[in-house]
Amino acid sequence: MALLETSKHSQGSVLGSVNPDLASERQTASFCVEKLTALLDGGAEQTRIRRAVGDVAFLLHRVFMRSISVLGSDKQVAKWIPLATQHRLIGSYAQTELGHGTYLQGLETTAVFDTATQEFILNTPKISAMKWWPGDMGRSATHTVVFAQLYIHGKCYGIHPFIVQIRSLQDHSLCPGITAGDIGPKMNFEHTDNGYLLLKNVRVPRENMLSKFCEVRPDGTYVRQGSQKINYFTMTAVRISLISDEVLTALMKACTIATRYSVVRRQSKLKPGEQEAKILDYQTQQEKLLPQLAAAYAFHFTNDYLQELFNRGYREIQKKNFDMLPELHALSSGFKAVITQHCTAGVEICLRACGGHGYSLLSGLPSLYTKILASCIYEGENTILLLQTARFLIKCFMAASAGQPVPPSVTYLAAVKHGKCPAKNKVDFLSPDIYTEAYQHVAIRLTSSTAAKLQDLIQSGVKKYDAWNQCTVQLVQAAKAHCHYIAVKNFAETVEKLETKAGIQKIMKHLCDLFALHGIFSNSGAFLHDGYTSAAQMDMVTASYLDLLAVIRKDAVPLVDAFDFTDQSLNSALGSYDGQVYQRLYEWAQKSPTNQMSPAYERYLKPLLHNTLSKL
Amino acid sequence: MALLETSKHSQGSVLGSVNPDLASERQTASFCVEKLTALLDGGAEQTRIRRAVGDVAFLLHRVFMRSISVLGSDKQVAKWIPLATQHRLIGSYAQTELGHGTYLQGLETTAVFDTATQEFILNTPKISAMKWWPGDMGRSATHTVVFAQLYIHGKCYGIHPFIVQIRSLQDHSLCPGITAGDIGPKMNFEHTDNGYLLLKNVRVPRENMLSKFCEVRPDGTYVRQGSQKINYFTMTAVRISLISDEVLTALMKACTIATRYSVVRRQSKLKPGEQEAKILDYQTQQEKLLPQLAAAYAFHFTNDYLQELFNRGYREIQKKNFDMLPELHALSSGFKAVITQHCTAGVEICLRACGGHGYSLLSGLPSLYTKILASCIYEGENTILLLQTARFLIKCFMAASAGQPVPPSVTYLAAVKHGKCPAKNKVDFLSPDIYTEAYQHVAIRLTSSTAAKLQDLIQSGVKKYDAWNQCTVQLVQAAKAHCHYIAVKNFAETVEKLETKAGIQKIMKHLCDLFALHGIFSNSGAFLHDGYTSAAQMDMVTASYLDLLAVIRKDAVPLVDAFDFTDQSLNSALGSYDGQVYQRLYEWAQKSPTNQMSPAYERYLKPLLHNTLSKL
Repeated sequence: MALLETSKHSQGSVLGSVNPDLASERQTASFCVEKLTALLDGGAEQTRIRRAVGDVAFLLHRVFMRSISVLGSDKQVAKWIPLATQHRLIGSYAQTELGHGTYLQGLETTAVFDTATQEFILNTPKISAMKWWPGDMGRSATHTVVFAQLYIHGKCYGIHPFIVQIRSLQDHSLCPGITAGDIGPKMNFEHTDNGYLLLKNVRVPRENMLSKFCEVRPDGTYVRQGSQKINYFTMTAVRISLISDEVLTALMKACTIATRYSVVRRQSKLKPGEQEAKILDYQTQQEKLLPQLAAAYAFHFTNDYLQELFNRGYREIQKKNFDMLPELHALSSGFKAVITQHCTAGVEICLRACGGHGYSLLSGLPSLYTKILASCIYEGENTILLLQTARFLIKCFMAASAGQPVPPSVTYLAAVKHGKCPAKNKVDFLSPDIYTEAYQHVAIRLTSSTAAKLQDLIQSGVKKYDAWNQCTVQLVQAAKAHCHYIAVKNFAETVEKLETKAGIQKIMKHLCDLFALHGIFSNSGAFLHDGYTSAAQMDMVTASYLDLLAVIRKDAVPLVDAFDFTDQSLNSALGSYDGQVYQRLYEWAQKSPTNQMSPAYERYLKPLLHNTLSKL
Repeated sequence: MALLETSKHSQGSVLGSVNPDLASERQTASFCVEKLTALLDGGAEQTRIRRAVGDVAFLLHRVFMRSISVLGSDKQVAKWIPLATQHRLIGSYAQTELGHGTYLQGLETTAVFDTATQEFILNTPKISAMKWWPGDMGRSATHTVVFAQLYIHGKCYGIHPFIVQIRSLQDHSLCPGITAGDIGPKMNFEHTDNGYLLLKNVRVPRENMLSKFCEVRPDGTYVRQGSQKINYFTMTAVRISLISDEVLTALMKACTIATRYSVVRRQSKLKPGEQEAKILDYQTQQEKLLPQLAAAYAFHFTNDYLQELFNRGYREIQKKNFDMLPELHALSSGFKAVITQHCTAGVEICLRACGGHGYSLLSGLPSLYTKILASCIYEGENTILLLQTARFLIKCFMAASAGQPVPPSVTYLAAVKHGKCPAKNKVDFLSPDIYTEAYQHVAIRLTSSTAAKLQDLIQSGVKKYDAWNQCTVQLVQAAKAHCHYIAVKNFAETVEKLETKAGIQKIMKHLCDLFALHGIFSNSGAFLHDGYTSAAQMDMVTASYLDLLAVIRKDAVPLVDAFDFTDQSLNSALGSYDGQVYQRLYEWAQKSPTNQMSPAYERYLKPLLHNTLSKL
């Protein structure tokens, strides 16, 4: 047997030439990868542009700009947006406090209007009121949008946004009255800047309160135009954009890394006498990865749907029509929660599916995980968001039951049916009508039964807020079921529209089926509960679901190739396009700083081994 | 309103005095915390000893010693164990390779016996055969147990363990023929030493093959005594000890941190007009944390059960009786997988339940998570372990069906019943008989239906290995159901034995009920599937489950206090005994190195703000 020559393997001679185990996966693609990439980008021209442009930093700077664009008057937009665009200032967004998160009304920072000087005086009245977490604020930002309780002549008017300068534009020193710094290390591996901010008698001119929808006149008169809920609109925008910018990208990268690795890694013999099998040929590995791949596509199309809805809502708001706000808030909240939760779990599954090597930072997976995990928390904690969606659902369910009109996404709640699933064999479960209907049934059942429990409790004398609290676990289930239904329905409708792209339509149909059946398989209780789906039908679901894994497995590599990530952006020894996994791991490991001779030997190990520890 | 005086708050005057919100939780404990701590430790004397002794480092050194104790001859034990005990050497355990994990037969490292010199010659024949991951090996260990394919006169005898010296005891330099180093950064935050090892014609004397159960005689004759499976016994020991040493401790710490924080953190108003509510008073927060607390107790008792079984098995093996090995292997594999998976998910839930502050490293939760996540992968990847348990289950099911005797933990498989759950109201679901029976029913159903599918496939002409692969998703479910059943049954039996400790028995009974009902509630499909549990009964389960949350919530703080962690070992700004959360967060954050003036301003921000970037 040949001995390993270290030197030969350190020269990186094989890097770049595609591992044959990976190359063979690409030869059998059932569709054109480049065309699928173009579909995901929204056209070949968009693909070209995306490939030409690099990443843009300062996400929070964009949030700062967005909040001014949405909440600022025309005059404020004209003043601040050009400064921000030209990076003459660095913006951030200071909403969360040390003791206060999603519950905006609980924020404690104050802004008192001083008619004498025509200024607002901002203060942090106690430690729990310190701004805490705002991105880019601890070390970088020069300006920030501070959310504070507005007081005029001693009366509180609730939360309003104020532009506050916190650092000098000349030398970056903190402005008078400002204490700010970094909140310390977090779970992500990069040292992201998240800041804290204390305000002590900080004065800003009257013009710095963002005043598209409410204004303080020089004499202290308070004027509101439109809904008070408009303050939430910035967050709606942020939630939707974070889905595509941060969350989906992370899941797609994780799928790419884990899938490519799974056709290179061989473990155990599937058939006696053959060589060890690619781990993607094991049903259990397929069952880990392929549903994540399907979810990545499903939520990509959900995001398209949300984006379109948001654009429509935005146009209406420009016309001072706020009717779409509740639906938009409910959908963006619910999907922010459902998608971040699903994708975080998905990235973790991908990481674990790569075994020990997934746990190595060199795989690129741990940093994807720690980054995406944060998305479950920031811009609204998921449970609270789901309860906001649920509140909307219950309200609409009541309205629909009373024959009143409700927004388009919830009209289905009016149609309580007591039928049974009509599927007769496992192939029937590949019909979008069958499974979409099943999802709809579950969403209606969970909403209506929870509404009934709520009513019963209230009628039995339980106080409204207590009754609500006692239903929250089930309300969360209802909100998730609603979002899951919309996602399945939207995926099915998207597939239908691909009729001119036969090859792509076929594989997208498989993914849509897998997404839907995986949801039923892994949440079977919800579908079995009232007998809508029978035990025999659930066995059909299982059979169809497992069959699909074997079908999609064949296109797994082309399906992740279509996400079109460069090796540089994946930054993974396991996931590179050429599949030279072991070589790359070894080369990258050798470069690790931990391979310098450490002082630990002289200090600890040597005395231990020489039994001289006691003499120290 | 009072202004925040930074200086006052930085002096830490309040640290150490217990936050009244936390103190009030301790005044109403329904049981004696100190007595419960003693129960967990196995007696008050054990508690005293535990409190007096610090942590011991070099886990892998212990594994090295354990493998020699179990696999070494008396002579080898007499030679190596004293050296290791006195730290005259530092041991590690080199099994996993770059390209090979759990599948031991696939390891590629070779050990060729040379009769001329009475030595084994060890080699790493190719890059995928490099030892990769062994703990303490990259920078610390002087010796290691290498698992390699044994060749004598050209014939392969399979995997055997060899003691190999890798570094000089004098100056710690690598021995001739050894290339070793660190595999690079991993997901944990501490820089644990995980190493790689390349062997090139490394010679060790014949006496260095661990030979309690098989030996190579001077002439090359190979002699085996006892089962070949004995090599797996070290791993069985390691798996069981890791459950208590690493996994349960992490979950218990996470529960302590999240629970204490949840009675200090207030968010939103539960009742109009009152102050903001403690977040633990929200049903959704209880539903996140309390099932994790119940699981920590449940698995603590499972661990006692496994430990006792292991001790019995070990005594038998000393007498060269290997009969208990298969059951021990199946239970330790299955529970290693189920407990690490459950506890990892639990720690993540605790982390997320603390919102943004949980994501801060200052909470202590991220490092608990990244550490426990690794436990899902090392010492056997969980899916593979579950499939080993499943193989044992199917074998025993077949044997039991044929009337043959089977080991005690699986005798229940013989008793296929087709009854229905007899519960008539929600209180019936607080009867251990009712829920234990339900778990047993599910375990039998999943095992028997998968066995039937396997048989059907084989009878329809599918090759055995293909049929097995097509059943693996369901086999994993069966293995989990088996373990879950044993855990519930064992918890219920443990509670029953606490009759002399009334206060503790009562709260443990609540936790046992919660553990069992949470499992049914969150996996309802398995219980509804064949109608064993009806929809109406499932609603009773839900009602009882939600009721229990409110009951256990009252004792939540005393229940985590009983885990008896010092503030030092928790190392958490959120979880300290005094509950001074915000104060500690602020003080710790100020000490963060990220609060030093960074060079980033001069280098990047200043040119950007002064619009001089282009001139650079």
